[in-house]
Amino acid sequence: MSKFSPETATFSPAISPKNSGEGFVLRPLCIADLNKVVFFFFLVLGQLTETGVVSPEQFMKSFEHMKKSGDYYVTVVEDVTLGQMVAPATLIIEHKFIHSCARRGRVEDIVVSDAHRGKQLGKLLLSTLTLLSKKLNCYKITLECLPENIGFHQKFGYTVSEENYMCRRYLK
Amino acid sequence: MSKFSPETATFSPAISPKNSGEGFVLRPLCIADLNKVVFFFFLVLGQLTETGVVSPEQFMKSFEHMKKSGDYYVTVVEDVTLGQMVAPATLIIEHKFIHSCARRGRVEDIVVSDAHRGKQLGKLLLSTLTLLSKKLNCYKITLECLPENIGFHQKFGYTVSEENYMCRRYLK
Repeated sequence: MSKFSPETATFSPAISPKNSGEGFVLRPLCIADLNKVVFFFFLVLGQLTETGVVSPEQFMKSFEHMKKSGDYYVTVVEDVTLGQMVAPATLIIEHKFIHSCARRGRVEDIVVSDAHRGKQLGKLLLSTLTLLSKKLNCYKITLECLPENIGFHQKFGYTVSEENYMCRRYLK
Repeated sequence: MSKFSPETATFSPAISPKNSGEGFVLRPLCIADLNKVVFFFFLVLGQLTETGVVSPEQFMKSFEHMKKSGDYYVTVVEDVTLGQMVAPATLIIEHKFIHSCARRGRVEDIVVSDAHRGKQLGKLLLSTLTLLSKKLNCYKITLECLPENIGFHQKFGYTVSEENYMCRRYLK
């Protein structure tokens, strides 16, 4: 029996961060990925939202800033047979003064490639990042999702907050 | 006429970040505040939520981490007559790979001391941080708020997102 306990969600067949299923590896995004598979990283993100054009320099600048802060856990599932990233997600740690200078987690930009749906990879990523936030002593973890995805997130112990999510967008 | 244009909200009488009203100064939180007025900072935050017990070392550690990242704009309104911080708020810049490695802003932990309500300080803070996020090239700025505060935020160009805000809390 696996030691990986996502607490509420169940996996069938059983997979875990260390054993992500035949041919898949869950791991942090690395700088060495730049020339290897980062193209696929953006290809999959493009199924979530607009990624725009990104130069290798822009990517490195953003990624190095994230790494330096120590607060970004950019995580990917790689299809090792294809050598492609098929599911990225990020856990961000936010620092507070409230609750005795606590930390809170945010799950951002989680998406599974169309071609790799139904392999529990979204569940695996969300379970992993949720548990990681607990391990990192966050007092809570939050995310924003569309109404049709509420049920999915509830399996991982998330509940719809009484608070509303409000947004102001700027024109480019 | 002031050059400060909050775009949608109106101020009567006219106040702005540079002229925050008689006896008030809007400014970043500083390390030098530690021994001066940080007590009041936590006192006001305590009107928003539980602040817990915070040692000067904990405060410094958290604040220095925030400052080092360059992504936390911890802002306060100080009552200079009383020498007290009466309204804190934080703008956090989050870095993304999507939208050409864009930035997005988040407004967190905004509160005005009970004794200083009705002086437009909440409006001033929200206007200032919203404009600051635009200046910092964020493609959007977001916040979470209770239903009764939706109308207030709409004055600053925020709309209720179709996305739901979901949360998982951990027991201490």
